Amino acid sequence: MTTLHETVLRSATKEVVIGHNRPFCLIGERINPTGRRIFQEQLREGDLSAIERDVAAQVAGGAHVLDVNMGVPLTDEADLLARAIKLVQERTDLPICIDSSVVEALEAGLAAYDGRALVNSITAEDERMAQILPLVKKYDAAVIALPNDADEIPMESGKRLELVAKIVEVATTEYGIAVQDIVIDPLAMPIGADTSVVQTTLETIRRIRDEFGLNMSLGASNVSFGMPGRHKLGAAFLPMAMAAGLTSAIMDARNPEIVEAVKAADLLLGHDDWGMAWIAAHRAKQAAGQAGGQ
Amino acid sequence: MTTLHETVLRSATKEVVIGHNRPFCLIGERINPTGRRIFQEQLREGDLSAIERDVAAQVAGGAHVLDVNMGVPLTDEADLLARAIKLVQERTDLPICIDSSVVEALEAGLAAYDGRALVNSITAEDERMAQILPLVKKYDAAVIALPNDADEIPMESGKRLELVAKIVEVATTEYGIAVQDIVIDPLAMPIGADTSVVQTTLETIRRIRDEFGLNMSLGASNVSFGMPGRHKLGAAFLPMAMAAGLTSAIMDARNPEIVEAVKAADLLLGHDDWGMAWIAAHRAKQAAGQAGGQ
Repeated sequence: MTTLHETVLRSATKEVVIGHNRPFCLIGERINPTGRRIFQEQLREGDLSAIERDVAAQVAGGAHVLDVNMGVPLTDEADLLARAIKLVQERTDLPICIDSSVVEALEAGLAAYDGRALVNSITAEDERMAQILPLVKKYDAAVIALPNDADEIPMESGKRLELVAKIVEVATTEYGIAVQDIVIDPLAMPIGADTSVVQTTLETIRRIRDEFGLNMSLGASNVSFGMPGRHKLGAAFLPMAMAAGLTSAIMDARNPEIVEAVKAADLLLGHDDWGMAWIAAHRAKQAAGQAGGQ
Repeated sequence: MTTLHETVLRSATKEVVIGHNRPFCLIGERINPTGRRIFQEQLREGDLSAIERDVAAQVAGGAHVLDVNMGVPLTDEADLLARAIKLVQERTDLPICIDSSVVEALEAGLAAYDGRALVNSITAEDERMAQILPLVKKYDAAVIALPNDADEIPMESGKRLELVAKIVEVATTEYGIAVQDIVIDPLAMPIGADTSVVQTTLETIRRIRDEFGLNMSLGASNVSFGMPGRHKLGAAFLPMAMAAGLTSAIMDARNPEIVEAVKAADLLLGHDDWGMAWIAAHRAKQAAGQAGGQ
């Protein structure tokens, strides 16, 4: 029987545990200027007020962790990310997922962060692991790892599992990372490009749980890219992925349709004892006068 | 590799195939007076007009097959079911699932039906199989079988699988039923009674597909019985069950939230090539001025 691992994240005052026998971990994704021109301009001018609004919205939507990305072209991303992380930590006690493709920015973010962060992300590429895993170790963080390398994004679960094995081997033996601090991204691809991609992702999730017992996280909106009805696709995809073993996702917590699908799946998978969270949420919604439906 | 079976149903003019590599089969469930007092009184008085409305609503909602049940206390159920089936066949070309706990009613329904029906249902009890399987054979029908017996509804997948094996053995060797005409109900129980029941159902579904390759159908609303937000629970449950191998469900096709979840899952599982059905449905909805959401 494979051990099912638990990943512990912390802010200065709050602990969040990602695990296979726990409610799904929602990682709120909007604190990110990618594709948002006005937000980018504000950040370039040193105006971080949009971050405060995005944090408030993700917290209100039920996020457990916040993904913070400050990838703005032509800025000092390291400085910006460090400032953003300090600001977010003033506004909420949720742990943070520090998200950057720039190694210096990840280090600045980790240095600025008070707690146990999730680092987003490494791949199975040796150079990327060599740059980032020492930082993960130094700052006692956990890390999201994508099972792809410089050659390819594997389209079969078997190849992805090989790269997971490589990541686990290298991270634990060469860099001293605890196995439970490795969170695998099983790679969700757009269904519009090839209608077999979700089956591959589900098979990858099932095998990572059964063979490694690792926690997993993915970008929940990827599968519906380019399709109409994206929220409904997300609301069907996450319960499937959760039943297969997905334990967290980077997603927009402002979307009640997808958040409710996750809460329903928590109940159906036995991660909401007596349905107490489900019933409480229903009562709160009724009290807010938005009952509808049933 | 287990053969994945296909179950062929027919009306006088239309064929519907239930299968693992096909879009999910929606069996519309409202043509049933259970719990509907006014409908029961109308049926007792020989007024079948409510049936016409229910048929129209299920067809409009996208049902592929219609479940017809005429279980009204203090009536001649055999006569009523035969008349109802003739009426439904005048109103739609969808195949019918003939649903009764009364053997005589099933026989009258089969005799009245023009096509290849689905009979709902047998259990693993010898007496029930001995009464109904000869009718299934005589009228060249398919049959839904529940893996429970007189002793118990098994709460572990292993015991359910044993009863599936018994049903398949008895039905094929003693009554000459083709294995692909056996549709198993993997037994969906209310989540409110015990939060592990859905995991058991999902495991049962996965094992029936992997070990027998049989088609499956269940009552989709059972899991949410007694809980608030039933439609949202159904919309999360069916994609999970479909990913595990469920190929049809008896459900209310009037509920767009659950029907859309099924269509989304069809797309995500690769049963909607190029997403053509999904995109066409989205366009039709936009044309009807109900776009919203995205």
